[in-house]
Amino acid sequence: MNEATPLLDRVKSPQDLKHLSREQLPQLSQEVREEIVRVCSQGGLHLASSLGATDVIVALHYALNSPRDRILFDVGHQAYAHKILTGRREQMPSIKKEGGLSGFTKVTESEHDAITVGHASTSLANALGMAMARDALGQDYKVAAVIGDGSLTGGMALAALNTIGDMQRKMLIILNDNEMSISENVGAMNKFMRGLQVQKWFQEGEGAGKKAVETISKPLANFMSRAKNSTRHFFDPASVNPFATMGVRYVGPVDGHNVEELVWLIERLVDLDGPTILHVVTRKGKGLAYAEADPIYWHGPAKFDPDTGEFKPSSAYSWSAAFGDAVTELAKQDPRTFVITPAMREGSGLVEYSRVHPHRYLDVGIAEEVAVTTAAGMALQGLRPIVAIYSSFLQRAYDQVLHDVAIENLNVTFAIDRAGIVGADGATHNGVFDLSFLRSIPNLHIGLPKDAAELRGMLKWAQEHDGPYAIRYPRGNTEKVKDGTWPVIPWGQWERVKEGDDVVILAGGKALEYAEKAAWNLPGVGIVNARFVKPLDEDMLREVAQTARAIITVEDNTVVGGFGSAVLESLNRLQLDVPVRVLGIPDEFQEHATIESVHARTGIDTAAIRTVLAELGVDVPLGV
Amino acid sequence: MNEATPLLDRVKSPQDLKHLSREQLPQLSQEVREEIVRVCSQGGLHLASSLGATDVIVALHYALNSPRDRILFDVGHQAYAHKILTGRREQMPSIKKEGGLSGFTKVTESEHDAITVGHASTSLANALGMAMARDALGQDYKVAAVIGDGSLTGGMALAALNTIGDMQRKMLIILNDNEMSISENVGAMNKFMRGLQVQKWFQEGEGAGKKAVETISKPLANFMSRAKNSTRHFFDPASVNPFATMGVRYVGPVDGHNVEELVWLIERLVDLDGPTILHVVTRKGKGLAYAEADPIYWHGPAKFDPDTGEFKPSSAYSWSAAFGDAVTELAKQDPRTFVITPAMREGSGLVEYSRVHPHRYLDVGIAEEVAVTTAAGMALQGLRPIVAIYSSFLQRAYDQVLHDVAIENLNVTFAIDRAGIVGADGATHNGVFDLSFLRSIPNLHIGLPKDAAELRGMLKWAQEHDGPYAIRYPRGNTEKVKDGTWPVIPWGQWERVKEGDDVVILAGGKALEYAEKAAWNLPGVGIVNARFVKPLDEDMLREVAQTARAIITVEDNTVVGGFGSAVLESLNRLQLDVPVRVLGIPDEFQEHATIESVHARTGIDTAAIRTVLAELGVDVPLGV
Repeated sequence: MNEATPLLDRVKSPQDLKHLSREQLPQLSQEVREEIVRVCSQGGLHLASSLGATDVIVALHYALNSPRDRILFDVGHQAYAHKILTGRREQMPSIKKEGGLSGFTKVTESEHDAITVGHASTSLANALGMAMARDALGQDYKVAAVIGDGSLTGGMALAALNTIGDMQRKMLIILNDNEMSISENVGAMNKFMRGLQVQKWFQEGEGAGKKAVETISKPLANFMSRAKNSTRHFFDPASVNPFATMGVRYVGPVDGHNVEELVWLIERLVDLDGPTILHVVTRKGKGLAYAEADPIYWHGPAKFDPDTGEFKPSSAYSWSAAFGDAVTELAKQDPRTFVITPAMREGSGLVEYSRVHPHRYLDVGIAEEVAVTTAAGMALQGLRPIVAIYSSFLQRAYDQVLHDVAIENLNVTFAIDRAGIVGADGATHNGVFDLSFLRSIPNLHIGLPKDAAELRGMLKWAQEHDGPYAIRYPRGNTEKVKDGTWPVIPWGQWERVKEGDDVVILAGGKALEYAEKAAWNLPGVGIVNARFVKPLDEDMLREVAQTARAIITVEDNTVVGGFGSAVLESLNRLQLDVPVRVLGIPDEFQEHATIESVHARTGIDTAAIRTVLAELGVDVPLGV
Repeated sequence: MNEATPLLDRVKSPQDLKHLSREQLPQLSQEVREEIVRVCSQGGLHLASSLGATDVIVALHYALNSPRDRILFDVGHQAYAHKILTGRREQMPSIKKEGGLSGFTKVTESEHDAITVGHASTSLANALGMAMARDALGQDYKVAAVIGDGSLTGGMALAALNTIGDMQRKMLIILNDNEMSISENVGAMNKFMRGLQVQKWFQEGEGAGKKAVETISKPLANFMSRAKNSTRHFFDPASVNPFATMGVRYVGPVDGHNVEELVWLIERLVDLDGPTILHVVTRKGKGLAYAEADPIYWHGPAKFDPDTGEFKPSSAYSWSAAFGDAVTELAKQDPRTFVITPAMREGSGLVEYSRVHPHRYLDVGIAEEVAVTTAAGMALQGLRPIVAIYSSFLQRAYDQVLHDVAIENLNVTFAIDRAGIVGADGATHNGVFDLSFLRSIPNLHIGLPKDAAELRGMLKWAQEHDGPYAIRYPRGNTEKVKDGTWPVIPWGQWERVKEGDDVVILAGGKALEYAEKAAWNLPGVGIVNARFVKPLDEDMLREVAQTARAIITVEDNTVVGGFGSAVLESLNRLQLDVPVRVLGIPDEFQEHATIESVHARTGIDTAAIRTVLAELGVDVPLGV
């Protein structure tokens, strides 16, 4: 790998980019890509998509003037080149580390970051809002959004496109079509886009994009003169497609790695009245042979050798794998099991499941609402669907859980992965709200397994009992258990894991680990595996409240409305009077850092629990 | 109006329908419509859309076999004919009344109701789930969903269509295109559908739909033979449109009031492999001249004379009107004010605003997520957008409030109408979760005005201070105040409305009214207008806790994680020990009834508060 970056060395801001000639841009792109590979070889970063978007980003910053012009990146994980070109090159090694750069764009990190993001499909509505704000305030900057083909199939992106077609504000949408979100893409829109790619413009190669614009230049000119007196939308006669029928001018597909042509196109399209989609085709992992060959692995690879691509496969057993193993086995026993994922097959541990049970597996794409309500339809007709979803993404389907599943008490299970603090992905991805927003939904059961065996027991229970069940587990690893392990855990029964009735700690899931480490050698301190948050085990809670001097609750969830609040509500209703200390994530968004570091600074880890025990008068030996 | 219904009298179930000849169906439809008009003249019912859908519903029940075949109605408010034809005719006068029929479809009400619903755009995902359950379990019933053009533009409907096109399961989607949701429809899809209607098939009138199917019969036959060996989707060459490009066979548009033709079409289309959209054009208010002429008013009219359409306009001043008046005035003073609605211009009191400030008004259609994130984009670029939204519909944008607005503390105001129990619309529409799900979001301020003046003061405060604000107010009426009324209410300061330190009641919004009526003549009982739920006024809370013998909290929100829980959390954190009684909506979905009746049965009304006061030892005179 070449270490010299003569062009990139001269770019400290987007303005410096303008001093380069257009002919130098491919070389600059290559230098940026090499920089990205070096940074990403430390592991845990979004490599393949960032390489794929680099040429588009170089072209955008060359053609536009950020920060005056607004450049939005959907999800924001593909914007490493943008960070490098906007004065953050030196800080790139700190990306996703505590105190370092965010893994996504973040408005408080740089004036060049137009939106703070992490979840998919939000860029189009944001861009529309910006274009309307610009017009309402009589300003004239440009707005350009870069959105991947996966994100575009998200419901809110499609709905935003509907309003964008209606409003006809000047804006450019770059559809970055790399044929792949994290998993392989699904959905009819995807098939449609595959069809577009064989259009002749694209097959004609070099200069095809320019030809495309020349082809439509006459109707464009007509449109622009008509547009002054009319808000009617423009149907591009050269391309009958869904975008055109929605009133959004469509240009493409063009080669997303021809940076000079991209500049030429962006300069022209961004000045047209009304909304325009420029459809560019890119390759994830562009320029890095091993990443182009397997972009799913290289989406966010572990630490690797930048020259050879060699890496050490992880031998750890993740919670996601534990879930995948459990449902693969469960579905063999129960013909009603059906697993649904919103575009997270790999992340949710479902690769093996999807192979073994292809007819009882559905990937709906990035559309969490659809995942949940499709499950409702299945449950109404006799299946026992399991929606595998990250906690942070379940936020997008809150109403569907409530309105489509919970009102009629349907047999849908939510397997909620990445619950609690997720670490490096930061504020947008922390799953620390689910206990609060789910707990207020009637009928819904909520469990927090402490290990793979409990996860299996809860899944089995949910498949065999009526009503909706939410089972949440953290990002990270657990111990593998044998096939056939199906412990019976009556839903709602806590477990005393350590006797002691001076101070009693109530904790479930990840928090239980901390509690056990904090109190294993403290004789008077009891520990309860509070593995069910709804319903609470009020029998055991009463027993504890009547005997203990004080209670500590610990949770990897916000303290507002979470498990601790549930305990306070129960104690108040049962008229039990005992001091309670509520430990959990405080009412602030938590920036990225390691999970352990966030747990330490928010006061829910082993050391924090020991400190609170000491404050409550427990004799806590130092340094143990 | 004709009182005789000879055909309808013979229909006690869908099976009875089959004994009629096809030629009798138009007459049956007419009798059903007259029945609907009679029922709806009592007021508060969904008249216009139910009249518009009647012919489609008659045709569906004639062509299919419910309940074996599943017929889904999006939103479910247009399904009165379905209720009448499925054995519920006698109960129709009880609709939306306590103990009576639901205003929507509800699976626990009838085996013929395939889904429980109330929110828009859910039917397609549900139908997909049902079709996949059918196939997974080796069954063979039919699935048909009826969705309006407004609901189709909702994000989750478009996203579901994407997966439906991909999965190619046998199902029929009837696109009921009446050119109007509650407000006039907006969006590019709508313009597209207007374009379709001038296609020649439709203009050819009678028999056009049959011709349409005959036209495509050859490719259909080809498709069906190919489909056995292939999952490739079918592009209908006769209609290049977004549905076809998404892999969903498209037929239409046809006359949605030609019931015989509809039967002919449905019988054929429902047996085709893969998904089919039948686009029917209907008129809201069909058959009732005054309703056809003004379908927005007649969407859900007040009590009226069924023969003449005469009604007495309401003279009451609603909370929605108070909001509309406030923002109309506010926007004259502040050029940064911009109001966004998801298809609820009339319901949210914005008709006048949209006329006075057309350039600072946006209706995004039924797409709550887009409403919120478009506001985020506006706020990032210097506006102070206000999202006017019903509490129950804000549930659909929980993640957008958190991820797009709250993380960066953006200046977006949420004007939350229909908060608390809404009465006749029932479980799907009650806004009793917002305090719980919003309270756990960092940075968000939450206020509950007690009257129009406080609403105006809070709106003004939110426009002038940074950060996101949620202001929630109930369905119902309030007192009108003079223009120019802008009281300054420092955010976070409660108000003592009655002195007394034996028992103190903390209540905001609607609950404060009950508290004042309950305690006005009880000397020892204090009342606090707890108008801010976030932040709580902890200074006043401390003062109350240190002096009162007991506290009662009252809220028109679930007791799980709501205002009472916020008080318990604060008292616990401040280590203040005082007995608290938490009154609110219990942790169960509340069926429809009058608002007052639900408040009585859930124990938050005046009588309930007096009972609790008596239990706490306050001397409460009987019968006052």
